[in-house]
Amino acid sequence: MAKHFADRMLDAIEAKQAPLCVGLDPMYERLPKQIREIASQSRGIQGEQAAAAREFCQSVIDIVAPQVPCVKLQSACFERCGPSGMRAYFEVIDYAHENGLIVIGDVKRADIGSTAEAYAVGHLEEVFIGEGDKEHAVTVDAVTVNPYFGSDGVQPFIEVAKQGGQGVFVVVRTSNPSAKEFQDFRDSEDRRLFERVAERVNDWANQAGCVGDSGYSLVAAVVPATYPDDTKLLRDLMPNSLLLVPGVGAQGGTMADAALAFHEDGWGGLVTVSRSIIYAWESPQYQHLGEVNWEDAIEVAMVDTKAALAEALARRAATA
Amino acid sequence: MAKHFADRMLDAIEAKQAPLCVGLDPMYERLPKQIREIASQSRGIQGEQAAAAREFCQSVIDIVAPQVPCVKLQSACFERCGPSGMRAYFEVIDYAHENGLIVIGDVKRADIGSTAEAYAVGHLEEVFIGEGDKEHAVTVDAVTVNPYFGSDGVQPFIEVAKQGGQGVFVVVRTSNPSAKEFQDFRDSEDRRLFERVAERVNDWANQAGCVGDSGYSLVAAVVPATYPDDTKLLRDLMPNSLLLVPGVGAQGGTMADAALAFHEDGWGGLVTVSRSIIYAWESPQYQHLGEVNWEDAIEVAMVDTKAALAEALARRAATA
Repeated sequence: MAKHFADRMLDAIEAKQAPLCVGLDPMYERLPKQIREIASQSRGIQGEQAAAAREFCQSVIDIVAPQVPCVKLQSACFERCGPSGMRAYFEVIDYAHENGLIVIGDVKRADIGSTAEAYAVGHLEEVFIGEGDKEHAVTVDAVTVNPYFGSDGVQPFIEVAKQGGQGVFVVVRTSNPSAKEFQDFRDSEDRRLFERVAERVNDWANQAGCVGDSGYSLVAAVVPATYPDDTKLLRDLMPNSLLLVPGVGAQGGTMADAALAFHEDGWGGLVTVSRSIIYAWESPQYQHLGEVNWEDAIEVAMVDTKAALAEALARRAATA
Repeated sequence: MAKHFADRMLDAIEAKQAPLCVGLDPMYERLPKQIREIASQSRGIQGEQAAAAREFCQSVIDIVAPQVPCVKLQSACFERCGPSGMRAYFEVIDYAHENGLIVIGDVKRADIGSTAEAYAVGHLEEVFIGEGDKEHAVTVDAVTVNPYFGSDGVQPFIEVAKQGGQGVFVVVRTSNPSAKEFQDFRDSEDRRLFERVAERVNDWANQAGCVGDSGYSLVAAVVPATYPDDTKLLRDLMPNSLLLVPGVGAQGGTMADAALAFHEDGWGGLVTVSRSIIYAWESPQYQHLGEVNWEDAIEVAMVDTKAALAEALARRAATA
C-alpha cells in the first residue's frame, strides 16, 4: 500500500521548509525565445508547441526542485497542443518525479457516475509513455476536480486515489471576477454555495480510510487568496483538508492573505505560484536580468517568494 | 465565415428527420469480443484500448450515420487510454465528419480566464492528426462546458466558437442522483442554483453575434430528461438555446419526458442516447440477436429509438 498522500506532502513540505507549489502553465507565446528555437525542430505546429512546453517545464523543474516540495501542471496548456500535448503532460510529470517532486495534475475534471470513474482512471492510474524498451508507467500524485455534479462526480476520484496513495483537490472557490455568479449563490440562511461545497468536502475528507497519520485527509480543496475573509472561514469548515491556495501575485492576493489558509500551527496550506515564478523575467522586479537570463530570474523569484511566504507565516504565528 | 452552428444543426435534424444524437462512450470491458480481438494487435494495453475504442466508434458511426444528424464523443472514455486515447478521440471525430455527421465533444471543461481560453483553443480549434503527407486538421463542431466558474469560465469558449461556426453546450442540470446536492441549492426566493445558471445561459445565448438565422443561439445547454418538471421550466428559461437531453433509457427518463425539452413546434431539443444504442446487444430487448450480431442490434435499436422519439413528439404536438 502506497503511503498516504497528505503524509507524503507534509514530509515533503518539512524537507523543503516551504509549503509552496510551483504552477507549470506553459503558454507558447510567452516562452523564452531559446526554448521556442529548440522546439522548432519538432514536427508540425502542435508538435513544436508540445515540445516547447516540455522543454520549458523541465528547465523550470531543474531550478525549483531543490526549493519546493511540489509542482502543479495546468492540463489546459498541454491540451492546447493536441494529443502531442497530452504526451508532453505525462512526460513532464515523469521528469518532476525523477527530480523528487510531488505532482498535482490540474485537470479540473468531473462528470457523472461511470464517466467520472473513467476520468479518475485516466488521470490517477498508470499512463504509459516512451517507446519500445523505454516504455514505462507514469502516475500523478493528485488531481483537481470540479464539484458541480455533487458526490457522484467526486467519489470515483476519491476511491481511485485511496488505492494509490494519491490526493483529490476539490475546487471549492475560485479567484476569477465571475466566481461569485454561482459560487456566492445564497440560501435563505444567507449561506453561500461555496460554503455548502466546503461542508461536503469536509464530509468526504472524513470518510473511512481518507485521513492519514498526520491528521490530514487525501481529500483536499482549492481556496484562493483573493477573498481573505472567506479563506479564514473555509479553513475552519475543512479542518482536515490541505488547502491549495492560488491567487497570490498577478491575481491580487498577498502572502498575508494566503497565510490565512493555514492553521495557527503553520500547517495545512500549500500556496501555489505560477506566472510570477515561471515568467519572472517579464516582471518589473526581475526584467533587468534580461530574457536571455530567464532561468536566473526564475531562481531569484523562487527564493524571494519562499522568503515572503515564510515571513507571512511567521508574522501570522506572532499575532495568533 | 463558417455557417452558424444552430442553423447547421437544424438543417441536419431536418435532413435526417430525427432530433437525435448518438453518444459514443466506448468502455473497453463492454466492447464486443471481435473488436477487442482486432485491437489486440496494437502495442501496449493503452494502445490496445485506444485502438478498440476507435474501431468500435467507427463501426457505430457506419451504422448510425444514415439515421441521425449528430454524435457526441465522451472524452473521458478516450482519456482513460492515455495520450493514444486522445489521438483516437480526434480520429473518431474525423471519421464522423467524413460520414457527414455533426460532432459534439463531451469534454465538460472549464477553468478561469486564460486557462479557459487554452481549453477553448485546444478543444474547438484545429487539431492535427495523421503522419507525414496524411497530416490534416480536425475540428469538432461543439463542446460541453461546466458552469461552476461563472462567465469567465464559459465566455472564452463562446468567443472561439463564434469564430468557427461552432457551439457551446453549458451543463445546466445533470441526471445523477447527487446532482441535487449543489444544483438544487435554494435561495431566499426558493429559486434553485440551476435556474440561475439557466438564466445566465440565456444571457450568454443572446449576446451580439450568437443567434443564428434559425433563431437559435450557438450557446446551448445540457438538460436531462430525468426531472420532467424542471425540463419544462428550463425550456422556458432558455428559449433560444438548443437543449441536449441525456437521461433517456438506462437512467430512467422516458421519450415523453425528453419531449418536454422541445418547443411546441417540435424544435429546439436534441435527445442523446448512448448505452441503449451502442451496447444494444446487452439489453433484454435485443440480446436474442447475440453478441456476434452486435451491429444488427445497434441498427434495430437505432430505428426503434428514432420511432419512439417521433411518436413522443407527435403525441406532445397533439396535446399542446
